[in-house]
Parts: sequence; structure tokens; C-alpha cells
Amino acid sequence: MNRSTSDQAAVANAPDALHARIEASLARQGLMQHLGARLLRVEPGLCEIALPYSERVTQQQGGFHGGAMGALADIAGGYAGLSVLDEGLEVVTVEYKINFLASFNEGELHALGRVVRPGKRVIVTTAELFHVAPDGRRQSCAVMQQTLAPVPQKY
Amino acid sequence: MNRSTSDQAAVANAPDALHARIEASLARQGLMQHLGARLLRVEPGLCEIALPYSERVTQQQGGFHGGAMGALADIAGGYAGLSVLDEGLEVVTVEYKINFLASFNEGELHALGRVVRPGKRVIVTTAELFHVAPDGRRQSCAVMQQTLAPVPQKY
Amino acid sequence: MNRSTSDQAAVANAPDALHARIEASLARQGLMQHLGARLLRVEPGLCEIALPYSERVTQQQGGFHGGAMGALADIAGGYAGLSVLDEGLEVVTVEYKINFLASFNEGELHALGRVVRPGKRVIVTTAELFHVAPDGRRQSCAVMQQTLAPVPQKY
Amino acid sequence: MNRSTSDQAAVANAPDALHARIEASLARQGLMQHLGARLLRVEPGLCEIALPYSERVTQQQGGFHGGAMGALADIAGGYAGLSVLDEGLEVVTVEYKINFLASFNEGELHALGRVVRPGKRVIVTTAELFHVAPDGRRQSCAVMQQTLAPVPQKY
Repeated sequence: MNRSTSDQAAVANAPDALHARIEASLARQGLMQHLGARLLRVEPGLCEIALPYSERVTQQQGGFHGGAMGALADIAGGYAGLSVLDEGLEVVTVEYKINFLASFNEGELHALGRVVRPGKRVIVTTAELFHVAPDGRRQSCAVMQQTLAPVPQKY
Repeated sequence: MNRSTSDQAAVANAPDALHARIEASLARQGLMQHLGARLLRVEPGLCEIALPYSERVTQQQGGFHGGAMGALADIAGGYAGLSVLDEGLEVVTVEYKINFLASFNEGELHALGRVVRPGKRVIVTTAELFHVAPDGRRQSCAVMQQTLAPVPQKY
Repeated sequence: MNRSTSDQAAVANAPDALHARIEASLARQGLMQHLGARLLRVEPGLCEIALPYSERVTQQQGGFHGGAMGALADIAGGYAGLSVLDEGLEVVTVEYKINFLASFNEGELHALGRVVRPGKRVIVTTAELFHVAPDGRRQSCAVMQQTLAPVPQKY
Repeated sequence: MNRSTSDQAAVANAPDALHARIEASLARQGLMQHLGARLLRVEPGLCEIALPYSERVTQQQGGFHGGAMGALADIAGGYAGLSVLDEGLEVVTVEYKINFLASFNEGELHALGRVVRPGKRVIVTTAELFHVAPDGRRQSCAVMQQTLAPVPQKY
């Protein structure tokens, strides 16, 4: 008996299943495990990921490295895209563009990715990076715009 | 007695001094030290940096993470920009945009950054990422376009 | 008697003065006059501009040309940036990046530019393009992210 | 009798046929006809297009409008992409990013588009814009990086 594609998507993207699916994918990313990223939130079309400050993520002035910020924005956007796809599909990043707004050297970064346009050929997303200071103050520190392509999952 | 700005630039950017200056900056980047990046080459307007494959740089399919590729391109472009500035100045990344062309899960990446337009307010660079296979085969795997801003060095 | 910079900004950006200032600048743009663009709305940090469909703005399939869409997004972002500057300053576009989401061959486009981060050295903006159909239906058709630089006004 | 796809591509992209095909497409672009663009050169993977200075292409300071420059770069990259496709296919622009390097108010612009990576799903191109002064002096004035998608031709 075949379930329809939309049924499959509904199952794959049920809140718990979706969270588990993204968490399992994130756990497979050596870079993100090494840097200490963790999944905060995922809903269809939205994903939020945290990266704590450590000496593993710094640039030469001691702030969060732009490369680490770009990597975090990339995966927040990528998982937002993945969250609107059927099981059996995943996304590859075609390209992204990121503007840096501010630099910080403590606390953590939260990247909030959102799907702007889902599509069969390409998915367009944006992500905003916020710095969360030890006292809880939240400040925008980067904005990203990204193009993803859905591809069959290979693992 | 004051040396002129261009004299200072000439000294700061003499081949050995330039290499030492960029290497010292790279050594201060916690992210790049942890990922294992190393400086290959720097000349005025050009910088090449290598990143070996390891489990610290992977995405969920086991290939080089787009975020690690973006970080590598970012610093190759950034140091190309730095190489045309007087001592006492450094660069911050205003923004970059990267297209991914291919994925690899062994060997190393070489990022070659070049200054397209030096400027007082902004510096425009491009970087190309090559994958170098264990057998030495070299293949383009990403292209980046970047905007930098010169700022006074603070450390 | 000197007025302070912030007083000058307040006067230059009072609602009527701001509208007149942007409208005068738009009237000087040969391209936009030729294509038929008109100012809809300007507030500090926000600008909305319309471009009606005509045979002057088409690509080979008869839809709005990506170049016309990019030009419209560019100036909506640029004028949003200008709206937060003191009189005597204007902006130049350092770079922009635009994703196209849909194509239309009638009605008009509305570009809504917003300042994400004002700055002395660079201003970061985003713009969203909406298609407005003859029956009033409004649909997102492109998103842009842009870097501007404030410069002294020369005319 | 069917010819193979590569035979069809060979015929469609023979020098004369390729030039005629791109010229016919350019003639269908209302925007480019009105602005006065003309095809200079097309080879597989490369396309060069000219845009003369006129009051139809200016911004508020009298220089070439960034939107006109973006439009020109967009189509030079797009036609470079089209030049590597079989007949019956055309390209849509997924996104582009352009950095402006200099402004000019006379002469003409030449946009040189090149395919960086042809692909079935996406094609990546770059374009460089040169200003050609009345005395023939040639100077780089913008660089673009672009993502295209091949689609079936509909007209």
C-alpha cells in the first residue's frame, strides 16, 4: 500500500519526527559537532540553531569568526529548507550570501533560518543571526540569503 | 623622521614580512587552528590557504562542509585584501557570496583569494576553491565574491 | 548659527521634506524615468517604489526583465538607506544580491526597501519585490540583500 | 531518425547558428532593445554584450545606473549559460550578486559573461563589466556572480 507524497510529508514533518530528523542530521555534521552547535527549534519552514562562544570559533581579534557565522547561517537555512521536504529528500546548498553587522566575543549565536520560497528545483531561504549575551540581551549580527536544491537522500 | 605611507606599505608587504604578518594573523584564528588550515602563499593582492580533510570539517554526507568551505574562502579573500594594506590596518569582512560547484570527502581544499579592486572604503575580492585529491588532481569546487573594509588594527 | 547634525537630519527627514528629497532624486534617474518608476512611500528606514508593466521592461518571454527587477530593488534599498542620512550625504551601491521567485507579464511591481543596519561606513538593506496584479492580488516575486556606502552629495 | 543530444547541441551551437540564436533572443527583450544593447560576441561558454551611454541608462548623478549595469551583467551571464545548452532549452536567472567598482558617464559598457560550471540543475557563471571610453580605454567597473537554471523553451 502506498501512501501519497503529501501523507509521507505529513508524517516526516510531524513535530517530533521533524525534530528527530534534523537532530540526527546535525549529529552527522563533524564540523558542527566539533564547534558545539545544537538544535533549538524546528517547525515546517523554520529552523533555529545555537553556537556557543569558545576558542574553537574565533577569528584573529577574538570574536566569532565570520566563517563560523556563515556556517551556522548556512545550516539554519538548509534545515529550514529540509523541513518542508518529503522524507527521502535532502538539500544541498547552491549558494549563499551573508552580510556581517556586528562582532561579539562571548555568549552565543542563534541562527534563525526561514523558507522564503519552497520549490521543486530550488528553495530560497533567509537566515538572521542574533548574538545572545550572557545577560540575555539579543542583538542582530548577520543576515543571509540562500539558494538550496532538493536532492535524493543518499545515506 | 616620518616614512611615507607608501614606504611603510613597501616594508610591510616585502615578501618575507608579508608572509610572517599573515601567518601570525592566521595563528590567532582559533577556528582555523582547530580546523587545521595553513598558509600556502601570499603576494601583494593574492593569498592561498589550504584546509585538509578531517572529521572536523564534514557535513552530514561526509564531504567538506559548505561552512568550512565558506570560512576558507572568506579568509583567503580577506588576507589577499590585507596584503595590499599598510601595516597598522586590517580588514573586516562586510559580506561574501559563495557558489558551491562540487563536493569531496578526502584530500584537501586550496582557496586562492585575489584582490579585484583595492579601495580606501571597500576592497573587492574573489576566491576560487580547488579540491586537491590525494593523487594531486586539482578541481574547482567553489567560487566566492567578497567585500572587505579596511579598519585600524586593534591588537 | 550652526544647527547640530541630528537637527539637520531631523529637518531633512521630516515626512514632507523626505518625500520631496527622494522624489527629486528619482526624477534625476534617466533609467527610472524612462521605465516609468514612481515613488509610493518613504519613511525613515523604508522606501517603496512602483514599476508598471510595459514593453520597455520585458525579457524574451514577455515577463518583467530580471534586470528591471534588480534595478527597482536596488533603488528601493538605496532610497531606504538615503532616508536615514543627513542632508548633504547620499548613497552609492557597493553591491547587491537578488533571488528571483516568480515571473509576471502584466500589472506592476512594488519594491519595498528596508534598512537592516545603518552605519557610518556601510548601510545594509533588504528589499522585497511584490507583483500587484490588475485585480489587486499581491505576490512576492524577488528578494534582495544590499550593501550601500554613504558619500558626500555632489550635485 | 533521431540525432543524439550532443549532435543537436553541436548544430545549435555552431558559431553562426549560436550567434543567430542569441541575437534573436536579445531582440525579444523589450528592456534591452529600449536601452540599446547589442550582441558583440558569443562562443560556447562566453558572451559579450555592449550598452552605450544615453540618458536612458543614467542614475541621479548622470552615470550609468547600477540597475542598467546589473541588467547587462545578468544577460551576458545568462547568454553565456544558454550557449552551452541544447536547442529547445533556455535559462532562467535564479539569482545574481554584483559588486560595483567604478562609475562612468560616457562611452559604453561591455559585459563579458563566462560559464564557470555547466550543470543539469544549475549553471554558475561570472560576468565582468568593462567601461570603454570614447578614446578606447578599457576599465573594469563591476563583477557579477550568477546562478542559472536550464528550463524548456516556451516560445
